[in-house]
Amino acid sequence: MNKTIITILLASVLSVGNAYCANESEAITASTNVPEAQYPKVDGNKRAHFRIHAPEANNVKVDICGKKYDMTRDNDGWWSAVTNPLVVGFHYYFIIVDGVSVIDPSSEAFYGCGRMSGGIEIPESAEAAAYYTFNKDVPHGQVRECKYYSDIENAERRCFVYTPAEYEVNHDKKYPVLYLQHGMGEDERGWHQQGMMANILDNQIASGKCVPMIVVMDYGNCGYIFGSRPGETREQFGASFTPIMLNELIPYIDKNFRTLSDRDNRAMAGLSWGGHETFETTLRNLDKFSHIGSFSGALFFLANGIDKAYDGIFTNADKFNSDVHTFFLGMGSEENFGSDKISDALNNAGIKHTYYTSEGTHHEWLTWRRCLNEFLPLIFKQKS
Amino acid sequence: MNKTIITILLASVLSVGNAYCANESEAITASTNVPEAQYPKVDGNKRAHFRIHAPEANNVKVDICGKKYDMTRDNDGWWSAVTNPLVVGFHYYFIIVDGVSVIDPSSEAFYGCGRMSGGIEIPESAEAAAYYTFNKDVPHGQVRECKYYSDIENAERRCFVYTPAEYEVNHDKKYPVLYLQHGMGEDERGWHQQGMMANILDNQIASGKCVPMIVVMDYGNCGYIFGSRPGETREQFGASFTPIMLNELIPYIDKNFRTLSDRDNRAMAGLSWGGHETFETTLRNLDKFSHIGSFSGALFFLANGIDKAYDGIFTNADKFNSDVHTFFLGMGSEENFGSDKISDALNNAGIKHTYYTSEGTHHEWLTWRRCLNEFLPLIFKQKS
Repeated sequence: MNKTIITILLASVLSVGNAYCANESEAITASTNVPEAQYPKVDGNKRAHFRIHAPEANNVKVDICGKKYDMTRDNDGWWSAVTNPLVVGFHYYFIIVDGVSVIDPSSEAFYGCGRMSGGIEIPESAEAAAYYTFNKDVPHGQVRECKYYSDIENAERRCFVYTPAEYEVNHDKKYPVLYLQHGMGEDERGWHQQGMMANILDNQIASGKCVPMIVVMDYGNCGYIFGSRPGETREQFGASFTPIMLNELIPYIDKNFRTLSDRDNRAMAGLSWGGHETFETTLRNLDKFSHIGSFSGALFFLANGIDKAYDGIFTNADKFNSDVHTFFLGMGSEENFGSDKISDALNNAGIKHTYYTSEGTHHEWLTWRRCLNEFLPLIFKQKS
Repeated sequence: MNKTIITILLASVLSVGNAYCANESEAITASTNVPEAQYPKVDGNKRAHFRIHAPEANNVKVDICGKKYDMTRDNDGWWSAVTNPLVVGFHYYFIIVDGVSVIDPSSEAFYGCGRMSGGIEIPESAEAAAYYTFNKDVPHGQVRECKYYSDIENAERRCFVYTPAEYEVNHDKKYPVLYLQHGMGEDERGWHQQGMMANILDNQIASGKCVPMIVVMDYGNCGYIFGSRPGETREQFGASFTPIMLNELIPYIDKNFRTLSDRDNRAMAGLSWGGHETFETTLRNLDKFSHIGSFSGALFFLANGIDKAYDGIFTNADKFNSDVHTFFLGMGSEENFGSDKISDALNNAGIKHTYYTSEGTHHEWLTWRRCLNEFLPLIFKQKS
């Protein structure tokens, strides 16, 4: 923005009506904006205030949290809108300019919805947000981008690997590993960028709430919207990830990091489609995993009855309860992705598990930050 | 995209005129697209083919390489355009929808131009691109995202740190460090994402062309367009980075990585405004640096004559030539950012340096990939 634009912007701010001025003055710039972008802002009622310069456009909307808000044009071509109060946490959003859904130029970009998307963080109280907030007084791990070559795909692949702060100084210590998967239309960046996983791990490790661990985030081969590939079945969608994970990713991680590589020290969890991938991978390979988490996902396996799922694995509750050290299900109270139904079926089958409800949240990242925060203290704490 | 959209897309492809069909059939999907996005494509004449669905828009353009191309609408609301042959390498680009400049929904997003931007890679020959291409047959380093707290800014900061592949196995070896800066309107992601620095380092280290080193990429506090902050002078723009680098970043890196921390083993280089920051930082602190590179940058210091620059540092050529082990300047042949003028002035002053011209390239990332490729073999090779 140059000075002229800023002058126009200031004039524009001063000229808006009283409808939302009361909150405008106290609204703060969203943490998810690019540098120097003043809008969007969030006010004390958790309403988001959007603004974009589009003097030639005929119709501009904001698309956020399942609702499209018409924006209003002023005489200088600035369009603005204020949302209803929003649920706290991270939301993808788009600006719709004459029918084209695009990223707000003021927003950082996040991979979600099968494409790069805008995003806005609606802050909750500092106390509630503390577990995923950067704390300058705790040691910080690193998130490492690693490239490896997949012979299965005949292509370069990328994963992100969180190593705890102490990894750099304890050169002889080996660590358990959590494989953590994103959902449909997202990719290996999601847990770090939208999920704030590094802050969650740093804070829990520092307080002793979870054990120091390595966390691996790879691409689940489901980064587009199901249906985009003609002829692809639901069973095929993302299924190519499991053999890559088992035969290439895990060996790569165990070779290149100081890992504890037995089943007692390997966990997998995922959100939404990543929860489905987690069940598909772990429940068919319990020789390799003993800690399992599904956040708002993995409902499909109930379709034919729990007894028939995964070669009857749930019909022998004693063996399952002995083999699986952690079995975690979580979901937001405002979504309907079936973790509650899975929990009911598991209870009926005598399968021990932890069920968590994130109060007030939808099928969104705050649900999954909370799920991760609940899941981490449970894993890698079995008696060896 | 759902099946309907794909059907429309296919029909649209089949119905376009012959004006560019000859190349359309051989065009390949750009490597910079998001998964499943077929367009933009690049044809054998290095022309980019863009396509976007915007049935309600009145005017759609593509803005790339300094030229705006009108897009043409078909009956189904798909707009398309083909560019002139483009220079090879990475280009930022935008789609302009009824006057609003936005990221193409088909593109990955890159931080540049003071905001998230679309980007397209126009491939050059495999031979020419080999040095920055992922090679599955060489060991790969890691790019680590590190967070640290700045007391100067009273805020969390982020840097990316490349460690060579051998860093993980040679636990007692210490490494020289290159601090590598982005340009105006970019940030600490640029060198890794647009600049392909990890591939360049991996390939050079594997072949012995450069020595194994750590590379640190931090935010140069110039990630917006100069003029956006009312009252900020050119001297102030980005200048807050130097004290942070000297007093916080370098100590953080030396504490958390196995570094050689003497001046013989510390380099700094930057592109465009990052070149200016490099001169401002190194030439005032030669006790801390002995290898210096400026790619398409750092012209301002000549304004009052080279003798007056940096407290007269260039007036004692013998001392400068003895103190500075590497002094590198580079620029694209098609840009006018003054590295040639600096080189002339340095020659007149008897200052030893290396001057490199990237043939055929502009003020863009391929120039800087090439500059880095030329700079790396020169550094950290002085007799100790």
